Amino acid sequence: MGKLTITRAQTPKPKFEDVSRLEFGKLYTDHMLVMDYSRGRWHDARIVPYADFVLDPAALVFHYGQAIFEGLKAYKNEKDEILMFRPRDNFLRLNRSAERLCIPPIDPDEALSNLIELVRLESGWIPTDPGTSLYVRPTIIATEPALGVRASDQYRFFIILSPVGPYYAEGMKPTRIYVENEYVRAVPGGTGDTKAAANYASSLIAGKKAHEKGYSQVLWLDGLRHENIEEVGSMNMFFVVNGELITPELNGSILPGITRDSILKIAHRMGIGAVERTIGIGEIFRAHDEGRLDEAFGTGTAAVVSAVGEMAWNGRTITINNGEIGRYSQLFYDRLTGIQMGREEDEFGWVVRV
Amino acid sequence: MGKLTITRAQTPKPKFEDVSRLEFGKLYTDHMLVMDYSRGRWHDARIVPYADFVLDPAALVFHYGQAIFEGLKAYKNEKDEILMFRPRDNFLRLNRSAERLCIPPIDPDEALSNLIELVRLESGWIPTDPGTSLYVRPTIIATEPALGVRASDQYRFFIILSPVGPYYAEGMKPTRIYVENEYVRAVPGGTGDTKAAANYASSLIAGKKAHEKGYSQVLWLDGLRHENIEEVGSMNMFFVVNGELITPELNGSILPGITRDSILKIAHRMGIGAVERTIGIGEIFRAHDEGRLDEAFGTGTAAVVSAVGEMAWNGRTITINNGEIGRYSQLFYDRLTGIQMGREEDEFGWVVRV
Repeated sequence: MGKLTITRAQTPKPKFEDVSRLEFGKLYTDHMLVMDYSRGRWHDARIVPYADFVLDPAALVFHYGQAIFEGLKAYKNEKDEILMFRPRDNFLRLNRSAERLCIPPIDPDEALSNLIELVRLESGWIPTDPGTSLYVRPTIIATEPALGVRASDQYRFFIILSPVGPYYAEGMKPTRIYVENEYVRAVPGGTGDTKAAANYASSLIAGKKAHEKGYSQVLWLDGLRHENIEEVGSMNMFFVVNGELITPELNGSILPGITRDSILKIAHRMGIGAVERTIGIGEIFRAHDEGRLDEAFGTGTAAVVSAVGEMAWNGRTITINNGEIGRYSQLFYDRLTGIQMGREEDEFGWVVRV
Repeated sequence: MGKLTITRAQTPKPKFEDVSRLEFGKLYTDHMLVMDYSRGRWHDARIVPYADFVLDPAALVFHYGQAIFEGLKAYKNEKDEILMFRPRDNFLRLNRSAERLCIPPIDPDEALSNLIELVRLESGWIPTDPGTSLYVRPTIIATEPALGVRASDQYRFFIILSPVGPYYAEGMKPTRIYVENEYVRAVPGGTGDTKAAANYASSLIAGKKAHEKGYSQVLWLDGLRHENIEEVGSMNMFFVVNGELITPELNGSILPGITRDSILKIAHRMGIGAVERTIGIGEIFRAHDEGRLDEAFGTGTAAVVSAVGEMAWNGRTITINNGEIGRYSQLFYDRLTGIQMGREEDEFGWVVRV
């Protein structure tokens, strides 16, 4: 493991006054973690003052999009403990994204140990109001200046931190989702099961369209036949049909969400049968029409669990569970945030204390 | 149109000694063109000394891959004239890519006029040996520091220039192509018909696989059924079957190549019937087996025309036209490079004199 060096910022930035008024990802802490790759190895892991990057205009990230990232959170609870939720899994997933995009893998244990150092140093930046956290963004970008279409031989790994307000500023509120029929997020053989920057670039236009129609999120269907439910882009999806909890199986074009996985494990432990399988959008609308669709919710790092109150598809709009938060949505939200904040027993060993 | 400002480099870089020994896209000229977008408008178009960019680690290009580019060439001929080939079409295509990726469009006429200024200033960097040129790389990247998944509200447009040696250092030589069956480049509803950086990020792994198997290029099939021929990633494809010239139609997942379009127009003018249609990979292999596959070639800015001598698909390898350059490959290469260098009549008005 390489040695981590730390250079402290001379002048700390002014901190936030009211975290609930911060726009997501617009304020960053005083320090960041940086590590470079060249000549076949990662080197110079360092914590340095947050500062601009200096990059050649020919850096490959600008031209061929070789960039991957992760997202997780650090929490400070009432006992002033700092907790992170399954952070090593984020670095393992970063390495799977890296493999698909021909980026050299990092050492997940070294990355985690360095992240813990960084979060310790920035502990004064972690908000403590209910639902708030410090968002952690690990990223790898290709930095070699070159225009041949090939994998870069130089990279930068970095982690920046941003204090974030509660996802639900006015309490958990069911979200309205637009089912996209025209644009495609991913297909088998593509990069849909990775956190490649590229996936988001091609998705923006559908998000814009959904917002213009008054919806807050896009639900993506499979790219081959536009029939089966994939994911929301920032969330995996769950449904409760006839009392049964179901979620799309990991088919190679869906992101294997860590929150998704956690909910499946919690459900199993609680004796709630959860089924991973192909789910048609038509099947969900039919279940609604027949009164069998009990609940829908999304899961992800940002919201943890987000109840879905309305879904629009093919010119039809359905209201789910009377637009209210369902039983499972609330159950998993409470259980998972309980574990994340150290209030409930961490029987799976998911929580890392900083 | 905004006013272009020019700041000259104080110390010119040492130029190349032997352009044929340059690796593609590793040496850049003394100046670049830069223009920024913020507060709803493009502003401050400027020619400045080639220098690193200074960007916030949260710049959206690093996280959500909002980046698009173009590629074209400037030539210097025996009469010391500097010529560019259909450059305005590149800026129009850049704007189509921009629209798909929620990037604000540029003024194509202003961009062209500014590019001409830049190329004039750097005319000493244009190599003159046969087959050499000055490669021109217009690019737009998202620069706003933000982590919310949405289109950036700040961008940078820039053009860098790189002298390039002849594509065929030892004369035109047929290339060997690997038909990719597992990975997917694009599907309808995606970004395959744009020059999004994202397309290249997801393609790298197939290029690596092809190189490991000894092939120089990847031929992509359609992402839905892996049956029909799309493109090579850096080239569109043409085939001659039973004397008929055919090329895949622009189906929404293929890049509308400017070289492709030029060849179709030249063919039409010469009375050569060229057909744009769906072409199965099985159809091409069958035509080969039955002795009806006369030629295959790729077309693009880099090589102009590149004869294909060998194709591997599903464990089978076929040799095309005895591994030699075919009649049409040579015909279109000669005609097109003749127009580009100002040796042949420019009946379509494609050439722009700098």
